[in-house]
Amino acid sequence: MERMDNGMPFLLKYENVAWYDSGKVRILDRRVFPERCFVECETYQEVRQAVADMVTQSTGPYAAVAMGMVLAARQSSGLGTGGREANLKKAADELAHARPTTSNRYALITNKCANAGIAALESGQDPEQAIFDCAVGTMNERYARMQLVGDELLKLIPEGGAILTQCYGETIIGTLIRAALRENRHFRVYCAETRPYMQGARLTSACFAEMGFDTTVLTDNMIAYAMQHEGIDLFTSAADCISLDGHVANKVGTLQIAILAKYFGLPYYVTGAPDADKYTGDEIVIEMRSPEQVLNYRGIRTTIDGVKAIYPAFDITPPHLISGVVTDKGVYVPYVLESYFDSEHNRDSFLV
Amino acid sequence: MERMDNGMPFLLKYENVAWYDSGKVRILDRRVFPERCFVECETYQEVRQAVADMVTQSTGPYAAVAMGMVLAARQSSGLGTGGREANLKKAADELAHARPTTSNRYALITNKCANAGIAALESGQDPEQAIFDCAVGTMNERYARMQLVGDELLKLIPEGGAILTQCYGETIIGTLIRAALRENRHFRVYCAETRPYMQGARLTSACFAEMGFDTTVLTDNMIAYAMQHEGIDLFTSAADCISLDGHVANKVGTLQIAILAKYFGLPYYVTGAPDADKYTGDEIVIEMRSPEQVLNYRGIRTTIDGVKAIYPAFDITPPHLISGVVTDKGVYVPYVLESYFDSEHNRDSFLV
Repeated sequence: MERMDNGMPFLLKYENVAWYDSGKVRILDRRVFPERCFVECETYQEVRQAVADMVTQSTGPYAAVAMGMVLAARQSSGLGTGGREANLKKAADELAHARPTTSNRYALITNKCANAGIAALESGQDPEQAIFDCAVGTMNERYARMQLVGDELLKLIPEGGAILTQCYGETIIGTLIRAALRENRHFRVYCAETRPYMQGARLTSACFAEMGFDTTVLTDNMIAYAMQHEGIDLFTSAADCISLDGHVANKVGTLQIAILAKYFGLPYYVTGAPDADKYTGDEIVIEMRSPEQVLNYRGIRTTIDGVKAIYPAFDITPPHLISGVVTDKGVYVPYVLESYFDSEHNRDSFLV
Repeated sequence: MERMDNGMPFLLKYENVAWYDSGKVRILDRRVFPERCFVECETYQEVRQAVADMVTQSTGPYAAVAMGMVLAARQSSGLGTGGREANLKKAADELAHARPTTSNRYALITNKCANAGIAALESGQDPEQAIFDCAVGTMNERYARMQLVGDELLKLIPEGGAILTQCYGETIIGTLIRAALRENRHFRVYCAETRPYMQGARLTSACFAEMGFDTTVLTDNMIAYAMQHEGIDLFTSAADCISLDGHVANKVGTLQIAILAKYFGLPYYVTGAPDADKYTGDEIVIEMRSPEQVLNYRGIRTTIDGVKAIYPAFDITPPHLISGVVTDKGVYVPYVLESYFDSEHNRDSFLV
C-alpha cells in the first residue's frame, strides 16, 4: 500500500469516535467495524450503556462520556439551576462508573465537564455549549500531550523494523502514525488479533494499513511463532491503568505477550502515564465481562451448550516484564514512576 | 453437567469422523461444528482435497485417507489387476501428501491400505472390502495403543485438579475420557480456543462437556491470566510430529503456551510417540496455510482490505519446555526418545 495524506485514519476522526450534534451523541460501533455502523444515544444513560457494552473502547469512552455530559445538561433543561447542577454531578458519577477498571479516568473527564457546565449555569451561559467545548478541549489536550508520547515511542522503533501491538490504543496509534509520517519513518506493524472482540484485527490494523504501513494480523496464538520468525523488534501497548509501583493493566493477553517478549529478548514498552491515584497493582479492579462474549463471534456460537467461559477484560503485567513506560516526559523505568509527578504535572492531570 | 454413559462423544464416533459406505466417504465438517454437516466424497481426490481444506483435522485425516483408499480401489474397478495395483500405489502417495507436516504419518496408513488391497487382488478377493477392513483395523489398533497413553496421562492429573488443552487431539481426548470414566476420576478442563479454526472451543470442549466434565473455553490470549487465577495444574497437548531429539510440532500456539507454563511453573505433557523417521526438529516442515483463513471467521471479514496475515498451521516446541512425552510405554524425558524404540515397538509402527 502507498502512504496516503497525513490526515487521520477513519477510525480516529473525532466525529467517528463519539460526537454530539443536534441532541444526539453518535458513536461508531467498533464491535462490527470494518462495517461502518453508528449507535445514536439521546440520553446520557444510553451513552453509559453503550460504553458498558463496548460499542466503543480504548479512549473512545473518554470522548463518549464527555459528549454524554452534553446530553445530561440537555436532559435537565426543564429544571432550575440548582437542579441542573445536581443532575450534572449525578450524571458525571454515573458515566464515570460505566466500567470499573478505568472509572478513575472517566471521572476526571466527566467531573471536568460537569464543572464547565456548572460554571456556565452560574454565569448565565449555555451549559450544553460549555460542556461540548470542554469535551473537545479535553480531547485536543490529550492528543497534544500524547503526541509527545508518540514522538518518544517512534525514537524506540528501528527504521525498517517491526513492532507488535496488542488490542487498540487509539490515541497512541494516532500520534505514532502522525510522528512517523512527519519524520518519514518506516516500520512494519504486527497486530495481535485480540479475541474476543478482535480490536487488533479490526481496529489497529485498519488504522495502520489505511495510512500506508505494511500491516499484518496475527491470531493471538501466533505471537511466539512471529517473534521467532517475523523479525519483530519490540512489543508496545497502551494501558488502561498504570499503578505507581509499575503494574500495568491492559487488554487481556498483554501479560502473556510481555512474558513471551522477555523469553525472546524483546523489549516491551507501555505508553501513557501513571495513574496518580493507583499506588499498587493490587488496587486495580479487573472487570469480568459476560462469558457469552467468548462463546460467540458476531452471533455464531463457537461451542455446545454446557461449556463455560471466562472473560477477564484485562490482565496485569508486573514491572519486571516492562522495559519502559513511554510518557510525554520521556521513558521511565517502571520502578520510578512516582518521579513522573516531580515537575510540572499536576497529579490530577490526565493522559492516555 | 452430569456425566453421561461411557459411550464416546458424538465427535469421536467412528462413523462421524470419516466413514466409507455405499460408494461414498462421509466426513464430519469440523470447520462448522457444532453445526452438524458432513462432506461426502465420491473419489479419493475429493478426500485428499477435504483433508487439505481441513474439513477434518487432528487424527480425522488418518481415518479419512484410509477410507479414501477404498474409493481408490473402487475407482480402478474397470482396470486389470496390474493397473489396479498401480492406481492404489498412486492414490496412497497422493493421499499421503494432502498436508505436508504429517505426510509421513498419512503414508504409513495409506501404504498399509494399499498393501491390503494389493494382497486381496492377488488372492482373488475384494480389494474394497480388504481396504475397508484395514482402515477400521488401523483405527482400532491406534485406539488400543492410545488407550495406554490416556491411562498414563490420567495418572499425571491430580484428582479434582484442572488441565489446559490446546487445539483438538481427538484420540487422546477420547482415551483420556474413557480412562477417567472407568476410574471415576474428576478434573476440570480448560480449552484454549485455538484460532483461526477454534478447534479448542468447537471440538475439544464439546467432547469433554458432552461426557460430563466441567469445561471452560479460554480465548488464546487468556492463557496467562488463567494460569494465574484458575488453578490449572498442567498443560497437555497431542503432537503432529515428535522428532527423536525431543522437538514437538503441534497446532500454532502450543509453543507459547509451553513458554507460559514454564514461566508459571506448570508441567507440559505431550502425548503420543516419537516419529521414527524424524531425527531432529529441523526436519519438520511447517505448513503455511492461506492468510485468508486468518482474515475471516466463518465468512465475516475481520479487517479492511490491504491488511495482510500469516497462517503457520504449526509451531515447534523445543525439549527444554517439555516436561514429559507420555507414550503407550510410559512417560519419557524428551531427551531420550530414541529409547522408546528399544523394546517391542517396530520403528514403522504408528501412534497418535
